[in-house]
Amino acid sequence: MIGSFQAVRPWAEVLRACMLGICLAFGMATAGRAEDDSDPLPSWNDGEVKQAVLEFVKRVTTEGSPDYVAPAARIAVFDNDGTLWPENPLPFQLIFALDEIRRLSPEHPEWQDNATIQAAIRGDAGAIARSGLEGLAEIIAVTHSGMTVEDFNARVKEWLDRARHPRFQRPFQDLGYQPMKELLNHLRAKEFKVFIVSGGGIDFMRVWTEQAYGIPPEQVIGSYAKVRYQLQDGHPKLIKEAAIELVDDKAGKPAGIHRFIGRKPILCVGNSDGDQAMLEWTTIDHSPSLGVILHHTDDEREYAYDREPKSSGKLIESLEAASQRGWVVIDMKKDWNRVFSE
Amino acid sequence: MIGSFQAVRPWAEVLRACMLGICLAFGMATAGRAEDDSDPLPSWNDGEVKQAVLEFVKRVTTEGSPDYVAPAARIAVFDNDGTLWPENPLPFQLIFALDEIRRLSPEHPEWQDNATIQAAIRGDAGAIARSGLEGLAEIIAVTHSGMTVEDFNARVKEWLDRARHPRFQRPFQDLGYQPMKELLNHLRAKEFKVFIVSGGGIDFMRVWTEQAYGIPPEQVIGSYAKVRYQLQDGHPKLIKEAAIELVDDKAGKPAGIHRFIGRKPILCVGNSDGDQAMLEWTTIDHSPSLGVILHHTDDEREYAYDREPKSSGKLIESLEAASQRGWVVIDMKKDWNRVFSE
Repeated sequence: MIGSFQAVRPWAEVLRACMLGICLAFGMATAGRAEDDSDPLPSWNDGEVKQAVLEFVKRVTTEGSPDYVAPAARIAVFDNDGTLWPENPLPFQLIFALDEIRRLSPEHPEWQDNATIQAAIRGDAGAIARSGLEGLAEIIAVTHSGMTVEDFNARVKEWLDRARHPRFQRPFQDLGYQPMKELLNHLRAKEFKVFIVSGGGIDFMRVWTEQAYGIPPEQVIGSYAKVRYQLQDGHPKLIKEAAIELVDDKAGKPAGIHRFIGRKPILCVGNSDGDQAMLEWTTIDHSPSLGVILHHTDDEREYAYDREPKSSGKLIESLEAASQRGWVVIDMKKDWNRVFSE
Repeated sequence: MIGSFQAVRPWAEVLRACMLGICLAFGMATAGRAEDDSDPLPSWNDGEVKQAVLEFVKRVTTEGSPDYVAPAARIAVFDNDGTLWPENPLPFQLIFALDEIRRLSPEHPEWQDNATIQAAIRGDAGAIARSGLEGLAEIIAVTHSGMTVEDFNARVKEWLDRARHPRFQRPFQDLGYQPMKELLNHLRAKEFKVFIVSGGGIDFMRVWTEQAYGIPPEQVIGSYAKVRYQLQDGHPKLIKEAAIELVDDKAGKPAGIHRFIGRKPILCVGNSDGDQAMLEWTTIDHSPSLGVILHHTDDEREYAYDREPKSSGKLIESLEAASQRGWVVIDMKKDWNRVFSE
């Protein structure tokens, strides 16, 4: 896994660090005016939502502002599925799991008597759904445990290389929302430290988040199961086991934030009721702070949904709470002039 | 908790970032020669150990070196108790717990029938030891759970303000080893990201590691128990519970590293057999990498111990493995000309 990070061009790193120094030096001389001259969010349409996001970032990063926040405390958290990339027609990690079951099934004759796994092989979403959380746990267990962490990473990489989204016909890791990538860049330019806080699997995400979003593995929080260390013939191994330790969704999200980051974010971005607890944790009794919800309203360019009875996409309570809490709601159709990169 | 980080002087931050840019720009022009002209580790005596540490850092950070490692992959992990600060006469977190029990006992008449807690109040180390892991767990439970994370942080801060080390008569957080603080600074100057990986409690450490070592909360990994999120009368709370989720010691250390960081460190520093698994995970089948062990050999300035039958300080197997594995062993008495800051 280290190999891929060593591939980062060292000169680019040095140049970027120097640019940062130069930009900051300029910032001192021009008192932060540089930001007014450009548009850090070109894929966002002008309007209240874009204004509210930019104004918040400016307010907490402007020296002398009563809401100024020191760089060390500029923590931002983003959900992933449905917030940074799509979650339809199924969460992409589940598509990975189903593809893996099909790939591995010839080696597992014992799976022939397993109704859930056979439904997975047939791609029978209805039967999988009827198998409930238990069935889902089984699908995740057989594809996400019983191997070393390196083996799992290699499997995810191989899948990303060959898999394509069924509608957009692009590699999944190329489907990060362009407006969100601009926001991530803007936050980093303003010395925010950005974390993903997702219900998805932590090991699954860490394989590709650095390339896709510029977010390094140590800033990715997700659901996880136990890993077990052992020396095998003198070689150190970490084995992925099936016992779930954190479901990083709903009330699990503030718990995950506390566990991994240890301080409250000042900015939280999500898209479903699964994000409500971390929106509350970030914003209630905590100022300055901003909560943002992405509302999927664009069936032409992406998907339109909110009231579906599936837990990953449901956006009912959080949308109702938004006006009371002062959370900003992005209307994808109205507020974004582009959804994906070219 | 955010408040303390906002207190960081913003101008100092800007200046430091500019200095970094300038230093890096210089680095490009002088091809890394600046390091030869100064001594980043003045509290380390010249010799093989200092040489090995500096040489490793230089090797992995010099462009064009076959062992060059890109900044993103320069992960270093340090144990805390006995590696960054002392662990005698007792691990400092245990001293905190015993002090807390004494402070809280008037409010808990039900503790009068509890032999372990009464031993804690008397400071009867023998009786506490005889109560075993179960007794220890009880002492930790009554002092580390049943309150919000903010309440716990406030308790640790108050204790740090008033408590003094029984021998050195200094606040505990002032007892970070000066040579290790120099090494941390040197690593950061060379764009390493430094994490603590300790058997100690994650929440306990995060209160003071930024001030003591310059290590922010999100780079502190330790043992932890469950936290439970709830809205209490509309206010978001995280409650610390007693159920242990990770014992970040021995085989738990590579697991904690994988869970929190998601990639292998290239530098691992520890001082006991509790650190052996993470030394193995860092260095075996993984090059370039360096393992370092601090051997407590200095009874005059600090403590001399290694074979004591207490798990936190025992250094037997790791010391035997060091020569086979190529781990560098710091002899505190010989290799450090200073242990604490003035």
